[in-house]
Amino acid sequence: MALTFFYDFASSYSHLSVLRMDAVRGDVEVSWRPFLLGPIFAAAGLGATPNLSSAAKAAHMWRDLSRRSAVYGLPPFVTPAAFPQRSVAAARAALALPEAVRPAFTRAAFVAQFCDGRNIADPRTLEDAATSAGLDPAAVAAGAASPEAKAALFATTAAAEAAGVFGAPSFVAADGELFWGDDRLEDALAWERRLR
Amino acid sequence: MALTFFYDFASSYSHLSVLRMDAVRGDVEVSWRPFLLGPIFAAAGLGATPNLSSAAKAAHMWRDLSRRSAVYGLPPFVTPAAFPQRSVAAARAALALPEAVRPAFTRAAFVAQFCDGRNIADPRTLEDAATSAGLDPAAVAAGAASPEAKAALFATTAAAEAAGVFGAPSFVAADGELFWGDDRLEDALAWERRLR
Repeated sequence: MALTFFYDFASSYSHLSVLRMDAVRGDVEVSWRPFLLGPIFAAAGLGATPNLSSAAKAAHMWRDLSRRSAVYGLPPFVTPAAFPQRSVAAARAALALPEAVRPAFTRAAFVAQFCDGRNIADPRTLEDAATSAGLDPAAVAAGAASPEAKAALFATTAAAEAAGVFGAPSFVAADGELFWGDDRLEDALAWERRLR
Repeated sequence: MALTFFYDFASSYSHLSVLRMDAVRGDVEVSWRPFLLGPIFAAAGLGATPNLSSAAKAAHMWRDLSRRSAVYGLPPFVTPAAFPQRSVAAARAALALPEAVRPAFTRAAFVAQFCDGRNIADPRTLEDAATSAGLDPAAVAAGAASPEAKAALFATTAAAEAAGVFGAPSFVAADGELFWGDDRLEDALAWERRLR
């Protein structure tokens, strides 16, 4: 029994959950599952990320992420120059890793993007994230380029869509209950605990 | 100094804030300001309510509102047959009321819509809301039909847009800081308190 944590490396609100997860999950086992929102948005007929649907909404999002990072005691949030970024390589790299080291690599990549203002579509950003997670950057790059990683990302995205996921982050309990958004992380963990 | 509470009578997540406000606001003065989201969505090029942009997102919204109502100890949430409903008459009726009785009428109308499954576009629903708020239903209907109420709703919607509002509920602190969503109600109240 585990709570499935679906995140997209390009998703700004996934950043909050990625950085908060280990501090709040307690004894709940969490399965980290990077996926791609793009195909799900496209299937729903959405051309762009909903958070950018108006200038006012985008402005609030950046302000809100900065405020929430402060409330949670996370490193200062930095709006990256590019948004949303291409997250395919990062997701494939993460899925190619053993599950035990996936959270550390994921955190390093999100910190690079949303605290250091770097672009995760740049291979050097992912190499540096691998290094700071204690991994061999060449092995991580090779994993990301493998056919297995490509297939895993396709399967994970299909699994997310099948679970009803329409945004990120999302959390799916062992009984299939779906929670959307960093604001529902605590609710999702409480739900998963009640299943035991 | 007051926190401005912008809500649309058709907004499902406004329901949570409308019912929670008096229990959480403490000593913060709150100015209740019903407005219309429709013109703001239209100005942003959005054809429909973003929460209905996909079947998966809509399904999660109803489930989430039911779960959150339970978490907050509110009356059971009921998905209304019609959504979104026409909220012009309700908003005009509320704006025609003295500010002191606006919250009670607002709560009664939201309960009718999202707990009793009624339609607020039906004049009888608003008359019953007026009665249960201790008001004269004929006077409330007359207020809603007045030119002053029409002008007030136009002005309130313009003020919301000028404050950067793009969704509901939204909260604007005395210094202009904008918070969107029922999930930010506590943050908005804390911000307003720090301004004093």
